[in-house]
Amino acid sequence: MPNWDEQTDIVVIGSGLAGLAAAIEARETGASVVVLEKMALTGGNTRISDGGLAAPGNFLQKRMGIADSPELFREDMMKAGMGLNHPELVTVVAEKAAAVIDWTREALGVQYLQRLDRFGGHSAARSLTTRSHSGVDIIKAQEKKLRGLGVKIRTRCLLTALITDNRGAVRGVEFQPGYRFPKKTDAPKKTLRAVRAVVLATGGFGRDVEFRRLQNPSLNESIGSTNHRGATSEGLAAALRIGAAPIHLSWIQTGPWACADEAGYGKGSRFASYSVYPTGILVDPATGRRIVNEWADRRIRSEAIIRTERACVGIVDAEGARQDSRSLEPCLKNGKVKGFEKLAELADAYGMPAGELIRTVEEYNRRITQGGTDEFGKPLHQDPRPLSEPPFYAIRLWPKVHYTSGGVGINSRAQVLNLTGRPVPNLFAAGEVCGGIHGASRLGSCALIECLVFGRIAGQEAAVSPHT
Amino acid sequence: MPNWDEQTDIVVIGSGLAGLAAAIEARETGASVVVLEKMALTGGNTRISDGGLAAPGNFLQKRMGIADSPELFREDMMKAGMGLNHPELVTVVAEKAAAVIDWTREALGVQYLQRLDRFGGHSAARSLTTRSHSGVDIIKAQEKKLRGLGVKIRTRCLLTALITDNRGAVRGVEFQPGYRFPKKTDAPKKTLRAVRAVVLATGGFGRDVEFRRLQNPSLNESIGSTNHRGATSEGLAAALRIGAAPIHLSWIQTGPWACADEAGYGKGSRFASYSVYPTGILVDPATGRRIVNEWADRRIRSEAIIRTERACVGIVDAEGARQDSRSLEPCLKNGKVKGFEKLAELADAYGMPAGELIRTVEEYNRRITQGGTDEFGKPLHQDPRPLSEPPFYAIRLWPKVHYTSGGVGINSRAQVLNLTGRPVPNLFAAGEVCGGIHGASRLGSCALIECLVFGRIAGQEAAVSPHT
Repeated sequence: MPNWDEQTDIVVIGSGLAGLAAAIEARETGASVVVLEKMALTGGNTRISDGGLAAPGNFLQKRMGIADSPELFREDMMKAGMGLNHPELVTVVAEKAAAVIDWTREALGVQYLQRLDRFGGHSAARSLTTRSHSGVDIIKAQEKKLRGLGVKIRTRCLLTALITDNRGAVRGVEFQPGYRFPKKTDAPKKTLRAVRAVVLATGGFGRDVEFRRLQNPSLNESIGSTNHRGATSEGLAAALRIGAAPIHLSWIQTGPWACADEAGYGKGSRFASYSVYPTGILVDPATGRRIVNEWADRRIRSEAIIRTERACVGIVDAEGARQDSRSLEPCLKNGKVKGFEKLAELADAYGMPAGELIRTVEEYNRRITQGGTDEFGKPLHQDPRPLSEPPFYAIRLWPKVHYTSGGVGINSRAQVLNLTGRPVPNLFAAGEVCGGIHGASRLGSCALIECLVFGRIAGQEAAVSPHT
Repeated sequence: MPNWDEQTDIVVIGSGLAGLAAAIEARETGASVVVLEKMALTGGNTRISDGGLAAPGNFLQKRMGIADSPELFREDMMKAGMGLNHPELVTVVAEKAAAVIDWTREALGVQYLQRLDRFGGHSAARSLTTRSHSGVDIIKAQEKKLRGLGVKIRTRCLLTALITDNRGAVRGVEFQPGYRFPKKTDAPKKTLRAVRAVVLATGGFGRDVEFRRLQNPSLNESIGSTNHRGATSEGLAAALRIGAAPIHLSWIQTGPWACADEAGYGKGSRFASYSVYPTGILVDPATGRRIVNEWADRRIRSEAIIRTERACVGIVDAEGARQDSRSLEPCLKNGKVKGFEKLAELADAYGMPAGELIRTVEEYNRRITQGGTDEFGKPLHQDPRPLSEPPFYAIRLWPKVHYTSGGVGINSRAQVLNLTGRPVPNLFAAGEVCGGIHGASRLGSCALIECLVFGRIAGQEAAVSPHT
């Protein structure tokens, strides 16, 4: 063991939703906690997320009388994950989701909009949205809580190594204070002993082009990402270097609602996510025809767009656009979304065969009145409405890297697994750095809820991890 | 560094096709070579393989006047791999395949049958078969060569760790002599210094239920495997523990030709591979209908069977069965394959609706005479023949784990990559332990050829690796 520069009970790496949830839980047991964050800003991807949280049986579902269950949620996640998901982890998320939402309201004072969304691949409207429509609401509430508990988040501290003893147990971390992302320097490092445990909550690697190309060479620098720029692989790599099990690393999710005409995840992407896919249709401009069930999971929708080899056009009518009118206005202003009184004009503007587009919409509207399921598997007997109220709005969509489904293996106690499937002593993980929960495709609004559920478990378990 | 018990220039771990190819190349430069094999028997999965090797532009294609090219082969591999393949590695295999076949003939004296197979996903008949229809022919020839070169293969030696110096370069190995697979014991270990390099050729993990379940929980102990029992993860794990990049680990291939009524890869599987899929049809017994393009890649065919949730029935006529008459006879004897004069009798024997099966075959035969492509994408204008000559033969098929596409990352010099995509000094790898070459699905007869191509490269490069 090194001569430790500092010491604390629990070290949490990362200050997104998962890391802060772990820090709160650990501190509330009386343990001392240090949170290290490599960026200048806390919050990671949570800060720029839409603030959607799927939770079967949540307070709003109860109030609205919407039938749902953990079992149904679990089935939805497993189906999207193509059965690669570790079932016991999915069960934990499904069963604890509603309670963790209550915790955010009661213990943190988080407020939610009076709306429930039903995103692609979900079989119920079960997704809550924070009041400001961003994950930052929860980050702020968590930071406030941690201030009250006397826990400081130390920003610009890069994890450089997990330090293990000769039996492989994690005893602390090596880190570089004063770090300015993404610069690699030889600046002095410090060692921090974790008397009880380390919690890894360093997020995904969606912005780490080098690392993601190892897993999928087609996701090269020409492919955009919706992530914050700190979504890189250092934390994950540190765990792999001490023998953590890599799970599902090659399953990198692209967001089908990403706008082809904006950088990152902007208002256009949000409009597509909240208006176009729930209420509209997705059309290949070369043919004027639909290409996919607009309610399918993200993988299926992204793959459908990529197969066309061109940006596809999402179309909604005026009624659909009202689903997210807060995004519509700015998008119309900056031209990401365009409005047209007639479908023929819309077709012309995107180089589509107008006759075909009109036929596509007529056919879609007609089929909705008949009910049943269309050729893409979309259940037309449920609530899609005809596209009939002008103006019609259009947006060009092309997938961007959004979420890295893979990461280190964990068990249902959030213990990191080694290469033989057994826990690495004193190492816990939560959030996007973990693999195995979502499998082949994560459903929308299932990231933040997982961060909360496993972040809290990691903090609780870390706090009772035996002294080493 | 430890006090080394022994020393050699090059250490090769594993005695399958890749390891022995590396050993030969390294020794031929004058370097001293030690080969360690954990099992009592050499040859790994190669020994029990069918001996098929895909090679565009090979001597038999030339003799038969079959048009083919490395580019076409490359495209086939990338398509099956769903673009996850590392393109530079695919290019190496495609461009060096024909030359490496010549090497096996000239340097090793390996003989091939006068036949070329066109397996699913390949766009040409380009696969050679060794004379005894098994990879053991090449293993025997390699062992003979190595005896001549004075290289001994030390069996029952388990790799327990790769030993690195403080800059991460591999300096040797720790191993357990006298090992009896699969027993874990505390028997004494030895250290072996590799003055130049270590070549990892430890194969895949198809029989390592614990490890493969981490990647895909549905591949539990109830799912069979065609692999030899030593196909476990120790070698791969040793590399991951020193920071090798894990690539595509969750892509585990199941063989669609696996016979539901035999253990492992037996004569029934071979009959399905060489007769049923090339010349026959695959039918869901519940419906009596075909379910897939019988010429699609393995992933697509396996997934089609698994979707039916029951063993499906492969059917050929007498002419098709002659494609692999050497397997037919023993399969008829032990009941894995059954023969019927009439389709209606066949249907009855497998609980199929007879009328539907007869219609399926009639329709299939009729469409073949018309040409074009069927609803599954099978090109009926190419050489499928109608099923018309009784007796009709049937076999029950249910996928088994066959190949683990993932492993450690390598570059085109067979250097193992670390987590930032740079070479781990003095560590090379070849064969199934590598990831990135096949991506989502390996085409049939592409494993042995890759072992030879990258095994030779690994041996050549290891021999000129700088002294450490």
